[in-house]
Amino acid sequence: MNAEALSAPPMPGDAAALIADMGARARAASKTLALAPTADKVAGLVAAAAQIRARAADILAANAEDMAAGQKNGLSGAMLDRLQLDDGRLAAIADAIDDVAALPDPSGAEIDRVTRPNGLVLSRVRVPLGVVGIIYESRPNVTADAAALGLMSGNAVILRGGSEAVHSNRALHAAFAAGLVEAGLPADAVQLVPTQDRAAVGAMLRAQGLIDIIIPRGGKGLVARVQDEARVPVLAHLDGINHLYIDGTADPAKAVELAINAKMRRTGVCGATETILIDRAYPAPLAIVDALVKAGCEVRGDKAILALSPHVDAASAGDWDTEYLDAIVSIAMVDGLAGALAHIDAHSSRHTDAIVTEDAAAAERFLTGVDSAIVMHNASTQFADGGEFGLGAEIGIATGRLHARGPVALEGLTTYKWLVRGTGQVRP
Amino acid sequence: MNAEALSAPPMPGDAAALIADMGARARAASKTLALAPTADKVAGLVAAAAQIRARAADILAANAEDMAAGQKNGLSGAMLDRLQLDDGRLAAIADAIDDVAALPDPSGAEIDRVTRPNGLVLSRVRVPLGVVGIIYESRPNVTADAAALGLMSGNAVILRGGSEAVHSNRALHAAFAAGLVEAGLPADAVQLVPTQDRAAVGAMLRAQGLIDIIIPRGGKGLVARVQDEARVPVLAHLDGINHLYIDGTADPAKAVELAINAKMRRTGVCGATETILIDRAYPAPLAIVDALVKAGCEVRGDKAILALSPHVDAASAGDWDTEYLDAIVSIAMVDGLAGALAHIDAHSSRHTDAIVTEDAAAAERFLTGVDSAIVMHNASTQFADGGEFGLGAEIGIATGRLHARGPVALEGLTTYKWLVRGTGQVRP
Repeated sequence: MNAEALSAPPMPGDAAALIADMGARARAASKTLALAPTADKVAGLVAAAAQIRARAADILAANAEDMAAGQKNGLSGAMLDRLQLDDGRLAAIADAIDDVAALPDPSGAEIDRVTRPNGLVLSRVRVPLGVVGIIYESRPNVTADAAALGLMSGNAVILRGGSEAVHSNRALHAAFAAGLVEAGLPADAVQLVPTQDRAAVGAMLRAQGLIDIIIPRGGKGLVARVQDEARVPVLAHLDGINHLYIDGTADPAKAVELAINAKMRRTGVCGATETILIDRAYPAPLAIVDALVKAGCEVRGDKAILALSPHVDAASAGDWDTEYLDAIVSIAMVDGLAGALAHIDAHSSRHTDAIVTEDAAAAERFLTGVDSAIVMHNASTQFADGGEFGLGAEIGIATGRLHARGPVALEGLTTYKWLVRGTGQVRP
Repeated sequence: MNAEALSAPPMPGDAAALIADMGARARAASKTLALAPTADKVAGLVAAAAQIRARAADILAANAEDMAAGQKNGLSGAMLDRLQLDDGRLAAIADAIDDVAALPDPSGAEIDRVTRPNGLVLSRVRVPLGVVGIIYESRPNVTADAAALGLMSGNAVILRGGSEAVHSNRALHAAFAAGLVEAGLPADAVQLVPTQDRAAVGAMLRAQGLIDIIIPRGGKGLVARVQDEARVPVLAHLDGINHLYIDGTADPAKAVELAINAKMRRTGVCGATETILIDRAYPAPLAIVDALVKAGCEVRGDKAILALSPHVDAASAGDWDTEYLDAIVSIAMVDGLAGALAHIDAHSSRHTDAIVTEDAAAAERFLTGVDSAIVMHNASTQFADGGEFGLGAEIGIATGRLHARGPVALEGLTTYKWLVRGTGQVRP
């Protein structure tokens, strides 16, 4: 069965009409999903994963089209790498859907319950948000990941992928939707915007009442545009300008190991450390600098760090506010915990910041005093990840303060309602 | 001490500059509040309440100025009633601050905690949102209520009250701020916008990064303007088009009592029922109509209800989507639970809807099937209130789906952060 044909709306020239039509269909599907038993959603996910495996040849052929176009259009090596699928990556995409199917269903879970003196029993119960819009760039795996998280949490999703992955996204979406239909779920539960016209993104961002939340997945340019234009609430993932503070009492072996891991394990992820702060009282700063240099990292330091080693370049003022996403680190010497807190307050993007210390009281002051989505003690900032946090998957790491903060997975795609059970109580 | 003078910023002609200045002072104060021990915040609230009591004569004199201006400007009786303070109302305002001081401090509370297989201990801990903007209309009590809830949850607040209550708001704010200063807290924790220029509201709505959330308190016009213009996230309270559905198996005595209470206890509150749906199988619909008429309620019915009694007027199509906030009710006959769910899905504003039934299975289907912030069984919709829900107070009832839903009090003014406690773990 061609699920894409089933779910494809007419192609009006008017982006607002297109999104209004998709939104209405998504709303209708969301009402079915909100009441769907967990077993039905699991069956849909398992069938979607099976369809992706069964259609591997088609999906890889579609991806080859995207890769050819990308090479012709001069995409960077990094972008081509994000775009490329192969047997292993496609198997991982299907397996990730099965992994989501194995997670606990958040919808219907009771958050709390209280009996009032008048006998009314109040409870808060999680329910899906409704219709979730995902706007993303080159990685085709987001098509399947977002669809799976949306479905499992009982939401309908409207996906708008990047033009460089258009064939891959269509093939993955068609497979996913075919799985849903096979399992008796509405194909409109997961819709892919059928045009790459940028006006469709604008229409999604202004679709109040049709789309309940927009989640942008991509670079700064995309996220900034979404935040700037959106009239629909946005769950945004901004910079990860993350700090690792080496306290005076830090264990030197841990300090070196954590600095290397936090900065260098993978330099392109949002949880990578970008700035290391070293307490002036810490006895072995040079060992940290040397280890980073030896690991292939460019070190940019303030005057005190610059004086330590000929391998350090002078940091400019802008370095303290830069997310390198590369093998570059800025290092500053600070006056103890207070100096670290002041630097972090001034420069952190409030994503993930960590302290290395053997002083439990200093650790607690840091955990309390740093106002970031994730604050760590004696752990690598690279753990900032929904999978590592036990959430099973993540749709993003929210750097805002409302609704959800840090890694967002199934629970972040729900809201709650209040249930009040009485026996005829009237209000005096 | 004149706390207002202490906290009053310069009065620049430029509203954006004014709000930027107030926002920067609020941010600084919010950092103090976020780390303030509960006892300090309680002391500030108790001192604020005492200052309001001590300055009662000044506050009532200021209120008399507003009342005189309101009468001159032809404010309606209802608006003048909302505006008016007297000894009793002022005592209630002060007492409400003491009540907030007695609530559990949400800031710092641990939401959950888990130990990962690698030994990392993850916990989510509530922290204040930061800077909360409240934009409200004629009720001066909001000045004290919002300040108290903001302070107790560790947030700095920027208040912008209506021009008709300007003198009352200034006097209440001055008393509140004097209490804060007396208790050693920053006066900037609670600021009142010193101008009634509407451009200041616009500047608040566009103060991304300065104000973390805007809460409008007032009529539809205000809330609609805020939702339309705001670039800052909004926690909005829209209509309460609430339904009471009388199921075929409802106990007739409960049905009449709940209908009268839900509609007539106070007709002007957002939890008042506006539409009653009666199952065609319910044996005694006329008794409900008669009781409402006898209680002084105007009844507008569909054909089936119209045929029951000469005291019923014909409902127009618009009646099913109207929040009367008055002694008027629309009543429709529906085909059982399915008919009720369909009507509610089409017409509810998703604030509060209730079922009256003795059938437990029907009740659960209603509680699950109605997608409103509050869904009730055998209870009056007039219980939709933070105080009645045991929250101690409320800053509003959120009708949106993100962040908080239904009655919002202290917890709704917090977000959370993730704390990760390790022993040197690096990510493989």
